[in-house]
Amino acid sequence: MKSLLLIAHGSRREASNEEIRQLTGKLQRHPSNDADDTSCAFLELAEPSIPDGIQQCIDRGARTVVVYPYFLSQGRHVAEDIPQEVAQKKLQHPDVEIIIANYFGSSDQVVELLAQKTSETLQQHP
Amino acid sequence: MKSLLLIAHGSRREASNEEIRQLTGKLQRHPSNDADDTSCAFLELAEPSIPDGIQQCIDRGARTVVVYPYFLSQGRHVAEDIPQEVAQKKLQHPDVEIIIANYFGSSDQVVELLAQKTSETLQQHP
Repeated sequence: MKSLLLIAHGSRREASNEEIRQLTGKLQRHPSNDADDTSCAFLELAEPSIPDGIQQCIDRGARTVVVYPYFLSQGRHVAEDIPQEVAQKKLQHPDVEIIIANYFGSSDQVVELLAQKTSETLQQHP
Repeated sequence: MKSLLLIAHGSRREASNEEIRQLTGKLQRHPSNDADDTSCAFLELAEPSIPDGIQQCIDRGARTVVVYPYFLSQGRHVAEDIPQEVAQKKLQHPDVEIIIANYFGSSDQVVELLAQKTSETLQQHP
């Protein structure tokens, strides 16, 4: 069983965390998503934490957990904090494959989408 | 003259700020971007600040500044901090139109791209 765990930063504004949970629901139901299990976790300020999120995947039967950082740039959270949290879980579960995927913003398609959105945004404010 | 000002969070990791500046360069050169002027500013931890970024647009001759929050969810930064910084500049420059566009992550296409990227990510880790 393969789990996808989307990692967001987490916010003091609960509506923002709820936005991520709803996005995760959309991802779960999306036809192109072939993970057996899709959930989210937060680096800070919201639940579940990254270790708890990974543990929940394992408890549901995951043999592979793909941790996907939903971040736009490679700041300390992506470069250091997330790998640190994941490394601890790997030590606890050497039998489970836990992989950190490239962060969302690293994709060239994000730049393309950004260009498209800025163009639309400018057209809305002629 | 119309300026597009991309707002990122800013990071203690300078490589992350540089990533945003390079992205801004790509946006500036993108054929679908019809802003007269494209630059970036940071909410914190990097330069220029949002007020300084807006001021630089105005100094270059902008009559309209479209502030585009490059954020994935509507946390406090998007809901409160950016509008606060912009409101102060509006008071100083009532003759300049300063608009805050919807944040990047609010687009349905972001969800679609996320679904596509997660699918690719899972295929890379069969």
